[in-house]
Amino acid sequence: MLYPRSLNQLIGQLERLPGVGPKLAQRLALYLLRRPEEESESLASALLMARARTHFCENCFFLSEEPVCEICRDNSRDTSLLCVVADPRDVLAIERIGSFRGYYHVLQGLISPADNIYPEQLKISALMQRLEQNPPQEIILATSPTVEGDTTALYIARLLKPTGIKITRLAHGMPVGGDLDYTDAATLLSALEWRREL
Amino acid sequence: MLYPRSLNQLIGQLERLPGVGPKLAQRLALYLLRRPEEESESLASALLMARARTHFCENCFFLSEEPVCEICRDNSRDTSLLCVVADPRDVLAIERIGSFRGYYHVLQGLISPADNIYPEQLKISALMQRLEQNPPQEIILATSPTVEGDTTALYIARLLKPTGIKITRLAHGMPVGGDLDYTDAATLLSALEWRREL
Repeated sequence: MLYPRSLNQLIGQLERLPGVGPKLAQRLALYLLRRPEEESESLASALLMARARTHFCENCFFLSEEPVCEICRDNSRDTSLLCVVADPRDVLAIERIGSFRGYYHVLQGLISPADNIYPEQLKISALMQRLEQNPPQEIILATSPTVEGDTTALYIARLLKPTGIKITRLAHGMPVGGDLDYTDAATLLSALEWRREL
Repeated sequence: MLYPRSLNQLIGQLERLPGVGPKLAQRLALYLLRRPEEESESLASALLMARARTHFCENCFFLSEEPVCEICRDNSRDTSLLCVVADPRDVLAIERIGSFRGYYHVLQGLISPADNIYPEQLKISALMQRLEQNPPQEIILATSPTVEGDTTALYIARLLKPTGIKITRLAHGMPVGGDLDYTDAATLLSALEWRREL
């Protein structure tokens, strides 16, 4: 490469990030060089600050600067409902709807043998411990309707069976506003299977 | 946002980068939190290092850790050819072919009134000064065949007219391996206009 060594090193580091290919890594690095030095400095310090201050909530494994997160500290929520999700982003997605008032449990991933992710690496045993202390009335397994999401939900459902807690899964079906003609067969099949009497 | 403040700040900084939308910014930030702290540290230091060490070559405005870049320092190149490009990435693209042995001049952008980029912001007057001292025999205006690239090439060609230096532009035409049936009309029209006797 003809680029100076320090620039190549930055490009190399950026390329390793998810969703950042060689083209975007190069574009980002060159963009930062053109901008005032303060911008790189504030990006670097934001990076270090977030990494140093943000931890996983010791109860639900969402993100927090405190040992226990904002949601778990909120006593006004509904203790009878626990929503199990794969990723902190999923918590935000559900909170955005504004109608769920229960608590969460973030698994930190989904079972995926192809990517070497097995149940032991996820926060499943932490979930079981949590349930022993404070069992909710219903657990919503809100993982994505993908192979990994379904596998993880089934695995957890089987583990939870002996507890007798009601276990639910998000409905599969057509997206609201979707066009039947453009809906893929798998989704349409699910929509048929999950149909409900009016 | 429910995320901790330090995390939101990092996401905000990442969102400002070109090619990084809110979704990717969130994904990158969460990825870095899951990875060992050393990774964030080495990314932050690569960023600061590249920004502090890399400068623009004072001759051609390519990138260099020295005042004058590697290409300009290379005496074995052909002084009769000067290739004018918009961006340092374009230098790499042309060097990758391996057959161009002249020198470069990086404009650091293209004229684009819509984006508030006018000739004065580009390295055009630096190009004129360079030509006074060491005029090449041919200047290749290797800007992209876009409105901005064409405008910039025409603007520079007009400025260079009085110097009497031969001015060329990269050929427009069909991409090698391209299918005539799939080629857009504008490209096909260019290919016809630029046709050459065999």
